[in-house]
Amino acid sequence: MTGAEFLGARYPLIQAPMAGVQDRQLTAAVSSAGALGSLPCALLSPEELRSELAVLSAECDGPFNVNFFCHQTPGYDADAESRWRELLRPYFDEYGISDEDVPIGGGRQPFSHDAADILEEFRPPVISFHFGLPSRDLLARVKGWGATVLASATTVEEALWLECHGADAVIAQGLDAGGHRGMFLSRDLTTQAGTFALVPRVVSAVDIPVIAAGGVGNAAAVAAAFSLGAEAVQVGTAYLLCRETLTSPLHRAALKSNRARHTAVTNLFSGRPARSIVNRVIREIGPLNDKAPSFPLAAAAMGVLRQRAEARKCDDFSPLWCGQNATGCKEIPAAELTRELTSLL
Amino acid sequence: MTGAEFLGARYPLIQAPMAGVQDRQLTAAVSSAGALGSLPCALLSPEELRSELAVLSAECDGPFNVNFFCHQTPGYDADAESRWRELLRPYFDEYGISDEDVPIGGGRQPFSHDAADILEEFRPPVISFHFGLPSRDLLARVKGWGATVLASATTVEEALWLECHGADAVIAQGLDAGGHRGMFLSRDLTTQAGTFALVPRVVSAVDIPVIAAGGVGNAAAVAAAFSLGAEAVQVGTAYLLCRETLTSPLHRAALKSNRARHTAVTNLFSGRPARSIVNRVIREIGPLNDKAPSFPLAAAAMGVLRQRAEARKCDDFSPLWCGQNATGCKEIPAAELTRELTSLL
Repeated sequence: MTGAEFLGARYPLIQAPMAGVQDRQLTAAVSSAGALGSLPCALLSPEELRSELAVLSAECDGPFNVNFFCHQTPGYDADAESRWRELLRPYFDEYGISDEDVPIGGGRQPFSHDAADILEEFRPPVISFHFGLPSRDLLARVKGWGATVLASATTVEEALWLECHGADAVIAQGLDAGGHRGMFLSRDLTTQAGTFALVPRVVSAVDIPVIAAGGVGNAAAVAAAFSLGAEAVQVGTAYLLCRETLTSPLHRAALKSNRARHTAVTNLFSGRPARSIVNRVIREIGPLNDKAPSFPLAAAAMGVLRQRAEARKCDDFSPLWCGQNATGCKEIPAAELTRELTSLL
Repeated sequence: MTGAEFLGARYPLIQAPMAGVQDRQLTAAVSSAGALGSLPCALLSPEELRSELAVLSAECDGPFNVNFFCHQTPGYDADAESRWRELLRPYFDEYGISDEDVPIGGGRQPFSHDAADILEEFRPPVISFHFGLPSRDLLARVKGWGATVLASATTVEEALWLECHGADAVIAQGLDAGGHRGMFLSRDLTTQAGTFALVPRVVSAVDIPVIAAGGVGNAAAVAAAFSLGAEAVQVGTAYLLCRETLTSPLHRAALKSNRARHTAVTNLFSGRPARSIVNRVIREIGPLNDKAPSFPLAAAAMGVLRQRAEARKCDDFSPLWCGQNATGCKEIPAAELTRELTSLL
């Protein structure tokens, strides 16, 4: 089985961009192994973006993907923020946190002309978007240097929308997937289908290639995704224990434990639904709480709690991103995992 | 690929038992085509059960499966019932329904010695259970006549429990599946994983054969399920339009429309979570409402509304059971669909 031409890589496998738990090291390791490594850019400053791209361009043996979010940054809403902090107040008290300790903002920037200016210097061959697509002129700039554009769809409607608005391939993100749901046409979680049901439906709806994401944890699952009609897969969770990641010790421990069997889609960590291993704050106020401010603003207050708790080696407030199948996680080099995942192709 | 020995059928495919939308006709058609047809028994009276089994035993060319629920019937709770009716009051008023029109009970009986007495006359070769397993002595009776016992697991924990308590094979029911979630160790819906993530995890956890269920809609999906480690598949939704079903015209119309793209897990129709196409009552008060009485008691009041609405050709209150992938539904004979589904094995 081949068919990775549209990705430019030897193997039709994308390492899922995972903001907060990896940098260019994982990207380079996967790309050098013949699959498509990804660099998550949503949390990078312009300087960091340029420096990551400079190193990757110099050192990476193979094409790579850069990933950006396409959300609308919401205005600061003092009332919403205040309701959120009141909900979290008992935890603030527990850790001796005062309102002054909480920064303004959520730390995640949508794709912008400033970012495109930097990208243009390096012309990365593949760019993937989460939460829709950027504005028409921004997309035109990216396409102008010949980049292949991928974007996440969580429903058939989103897949059709992305195809119609210029995506070159669509990532069908099943509900099994870890991290943020890419949903952008609806906020209704009942629209979200599992990978097994979603992939064949998206495949039959669009003419562009479909990349299966969500629950892909070993070579057999990669083969199964191809059986469902996908032309490539995107794998995130399985890479989380690789040495080239920045996965924290607490996150690693959770992934290796039986706790990883129980994940939930939660909006507590950023304001948008994302799948995490269930921890204390999810059990106590979530997983879905109406008081969480709009993405990414919920991350500010929760981030302070996380920081203080993690200093005590406690993951009660940490986003423990994880898909519904963590059995593929292995503490091996990313190149070796990439070879294992693609061994049946 | 073979491996259906443990089912006794030529093909490793089970037609999912679908109480309320099928009788022995579908069972016989599928079993005669070489797969394992199922007879849903939870809604049958003792007389109906005996007569269905008598016809099947005489006419069915091949083994078949009988399916029972294993819930605990809850005591009638007048307060809970009253809260539920108050919630539904505006709909009752809309249809001129009074409290006296609502029967007591929910119409679904768990497996019992009375049912086993009848089964014993016919000794069906396969019996499957939903919501756990029956009591030890009941299970011993079933095993006593040599029946193969299947049971649904929605989590790894449930699969291990079923293996330990005597199931001969486990049906890994992914969240993609239509109809009732078989969950019995937890009521927490965040424990429910998609088929793609669940099947490999169950396969690696238990030593008994695993049957994949949820989102299996065509021959490619059957092959994909085998890639994930399943030794058989269970397919429900795809059969719903076959002529041998009792699927109502309203349900058929919904399945054939774009509405089938949007399903939700709802407790409104019976009190237990089950996947249905989204309709008016789900949109307006659900999909999950705390006021729904315990299974199966919610069905009483909702059933009256359903009856009245359906008389007006309206599916606002009908359980439109459907998995997350209805694209496999075809208006063809069940034998033909069975051949199509097994064509890549």
